[in-house]
Amino acid sequence: MASHSSKIKKGWNGPKELKGLPIEDSFRSHGIPLEKVKKDETEFSVLKNWLESYELSELLDAEFKPIPEILDILPEKDLRMGMTKHGNGGAIAKELILPDLQIYEYSSFEPAKEYASSMGRLGEYLRDVIKLNPRNFRIMSPDETESNKLHSLFEVTDRGYMWPVPFGSENIGPEGRVMEILSEHTLQGWLQGYTLTGRHGVFISYEAFMMIVASMVDQYSKFLKQSDLISWRSPVPSMNIVLTSNAWRQDHNGFSHQNPGFISSVLNDQCNKVNVHFPADANMLLATMEDCLRTKNMVNVIITGKRELPQYMSIQEARLQIKSGINRWVWAGNHDSDPDVVFVATGDYMTQETLAAIKILKEIAPEMRTRFINISELTCFGIGDNRNLCRISLREFRELFTADREIIYNYHGYPEDIKHLIYNHPDAHRFHIKGYVEKGTTTTPFDMVVQNGTDRYSLAIEAIEYASAVNNEILIKKGTLQKQLEDILEKHRHFIKEHGEDIPEVTEFKL
Amino acid sequence: MASHSSKIKKGWNGPKELKGLPIEDSFRSHGIPLEKVKKDETEFSVLKNWLESYELSELLDAEFKPIPEILDILPEKDLRMGMTKHGNGGAIAKELILPDLQIYEYSSFEPAKEYASSMGRLGEYLRDVIKLNPRNFRIMSPDETESNKLHSLFEVTDRGYMWPVPFGSENIGPEGRVMEILSEHTLQGWLQGYTLTGRHGVFISYEAFMMIVASMVDQYSKFLKQSDLISWRSPVPSMNIVLTSNAWRQDHNGFSHQNPGFISSVLNDQCNKVNVHFPADANMLLATMEDCLRTKNMVNVIITGKRELPQYMSIQEARLQIKSGINRWVWAGNHDSDPDVVFVATGDYMTQETLAAIKILKEIAPEMRTRFINISELTCFGIGDNRNLCRISLREFRELFTADREIIYNYHGYPEDIKHLIYNHPDAHRFHIKGYVEKGTTTTPFDMVVQNGTDRYSLAIEAIEYASAVNNEILIKKGTLQKQLEDILEKHRHFIKEHGEDIPEVTEFKL
Repeated sequence: MASHSSKIKKGWNGPKELKGLPIEDSFRSHGIPLEKVKKDETEFSVLKNWLESYELSELLDAEFKPIPEILDILPEKDLRMGMTKHGNGGAIAKELILPDLQIYEYSSFEPAKEYASSMGRLGEYLRDVIKLNPRNFRIMSPDETESNKLHSLFEVTDRGYMWPVPFGSENIGPEGRVMEILSEHTLQGWLQGYTLTGRHGVFISYEAFMMIVASMVDQYSKFLKQSDLISWRSPVPSMNIVLTSNAWRQDHNGFSHQNPGFISSVLNDQCNKVNVHFPADANMLLATMEDCLRTKNMVNVIITGKRELPQYMSIQEARLQIKSGINRWVWAGNHDSDPDVVFVATGDYMTQETLAAIKILKEIAPEMRTRFINISELTCFGIGDNRNLCRISLREFRELFTADREIIYNYHGYPEDIKHLIYNHPDAHRFHIKGYVEKGTTTTPFDMVVQNGTDRYSLAIEAIEYASAVNNEILIKKGTLQKQLEDILEKHRHFIKEHGEDIPEVTEFKL
Repeated sequence: MASHSSKIKKGWNGPKELKGLPIEDSFRSHGIPLEKVKKDETEFSVLKNWLESYELSELLDAEFKPIPEILDILPEKDLRMGMTKHGNGGAIAKELILPDLQIYEYSSFEPAKEYASSMGRLGEYLRDVIKLNPRNFRIMSPDETESNKLHSLFEVTDRGYMWPVPFGSENIGPEGRVMEILSEHTLQGWLQGYTLTGRHGVFISYEAFMMIVASMVDQYSKFLKQSDLISWRSPVPSMNIVLTSNAWRQDHNGFSHQNPGFISSVLNDQCNKVNVHFPADANMLLATMEDCLRTKNMVNVIITGKRELPQYMSIQEARLQIKSGINRWVWAGNHDSDPDVVFVATGDYMTQETLAAIKILKEIAPEMRTRFINISELTCFGIGDNRNLCRISLREFRELFTADREIIYNYHGYPEDIKHLIYNHPDAHRFHIKGYVEKGTTTTPFDMVVQNGTDRYSLAIEAIEYASAVNNEILIKKGTLQKQLEDILEKHRHFIKEHGEDIPEVTEFKL
């Protein structure tokens, strides 16, 4: 025990022992060492003697208030521990200087004709955020900056690295603003410390990996909820989390890397501190990121693919959509004003599949009337939920979703997320929710959506079913149309086994 | 670099370098070192030379099958790595010898008259399971065996401890079957290894702490799902997880220790590998544990309180209820055959509050007709969910829940869990779901339920509302009845601030 004598002992500042057994510096100090204090005289006197050893009568006056000598020791306002600039970082936080988004905009294109990697574009934007804010902005990432397509960052900064730089290394150095370490727990802790002290940051991870820090994010949103109640606490820059390399494109890593559970976990949070964004394309990702970087005291989660995907909106249109998080894309539907069936999508890959279903239907059944709605934010869409964040009335709801048509909702994550958000809404029964239903493996990109029932052909087959109930022309052709699509799915199943890649109908498809 | 030379290098068995930059033993070996192999001739030849260095032509015949000398090296069936007894532990697993549950039964009592700690009873049962199975059963717990009321275990075993036993310690030693370490990650890993090698175990934790290993449990249930597809793999003993010290009784630890998110996380799992049990009392906990210890290839989660709570059922009744997970407690209701309103509860504290609401209504409004249903398992109750585990038909459903009455459901965890389980059920709109809505703090036990709207008075006030729509006698008295209950809640709010403890109406209440 000698080696312990120079340290502070476990259970120091408590009774030293009870009935010959040690409390201080033993396991008992981390339990309830005096459990029977109300009944056992020995325990009672041990407690009494210990409490009296503080000689409280010397410190308090007759009314049990601290004596003036004690009150005099208390530090002044800003010197109090929680009120120092280190403890109340929001008070010294500087707004980020953000570059003009127009610089990064894809402009002058028709919707869905050009392709880009959202993450690639984000890399260029964040590169310039670093350039403009060299001292108060950092990126956290578990060694995935390159694989998440953010290589542009290394045009202006390094990975932070304090030791001598090894031979053959690239983009590392002591001034680096990109913090890479293969520990999501450490990164989450760093980001909390960094934002709580008034600086800004973005955590970028593979979607499936974030689940391992779901509990830390829970605790942090609880902290934010409570800190709102403290009048003198200044709000701190938000925690921004970008999840990419998601379940729908894990062609090589497979089942273990498919897990949208973090989204479910934060949507379950009832602290009103979390927004989850699903930008449909690169311009919308940029507008979303700009918006998030300006918020305070929030946990902003952004879900985005990193592969080449169709581009739909200008920056201006994107800014408009993120105000409500819901948008009807009139150009995407077919006779959108009075549809037979309504399609909804959330998430970029799901948006692409759903638009492909609509395109196919336009070709094989031009008399079928369809509408497309993109939902790019959850919690704001919390219709009927107990967060009261629903921003649309029933009248507006039915203008968007019609008063009586069936709604096919293609969702990025677990369908359960949407189920509990729209539960109790009077029109909930019209929603048919598709999503990730744990059918994953190492397979082709298109087979992932087929296995989970979120693919264009399955969506179209289901839409024909609903449309046939209200559109007689579709009713007549229903069997033929559905068979035609089922045949392609059947071909797909054989083709991928033989060729190890997707059918040409998919790989050569253009929206 | 000299210090590395005796180790296996990172990226060993790959191209050593590209254009003068090292791949082997550098960060590049954990990325995509040859990214442009299809376009860049140098990259292509580096890849080609490396692949050819294996001299595959010496190993394969003209049809690209391994030559006989290679096939001869392959081990025989049971000596193959995955098929050895170490890799396929299910094949050597022995069934546990389980004690007769009657020994631990509370018998000959009226429902809800006696009190007991479920965890205390479980401790006695598990003690005897250890006694009967001294070599293939272990308990895992993050230093909470005592605080979770399992002290009986130490009558027959110790905490496992391999080092010399320090002075003053208790119940530790090298033969101990209780594995205590303050790392849920380590415990979860130990339990996986232990059950995968054919042994049995129970992980016992504080409810809120389990969230930190939610991702590990996700991955394990994915593994179980996949292993079902391997014909020669024998099923292994289930992973049994007991969560206690839950959100409703965190009087001292407060908000940070209140988190039923692990339940939500496993209920989101779509591998059909998870059952969540909510035994209402000690006998039911015993019957549930017995049942779980006999299952294979499952993740069984059991949610139970550790405080003194009312006892309702015999072992025989409990065994009957766990078959379906849903049970109508006719004794609890008032004129149960044709109720004005239906109460449902899941979880022991929620059952107590709900029964208290019914008792209060019996006293102040004896003409009000009530029914009580206890739901003790989720996933089996997954009405309308996509797991197809629903065991009751719509006819049975309406026999239990009536055809048209409002249903007040008092649920242990986040209300979202129930919302997505009953989403799409034709009667979902009749369910009014209460639960943990993140309103927590360090407060009195009864104030926790009041803050979350799961308390007996709030339930009774809402029930009067619904009953008044179908029972004229209640309609006439509605205002008076509700005012009377609201007054008690008002008193509660003042009383706890003044006295720091709950009102006598609650502390002295008997079911």
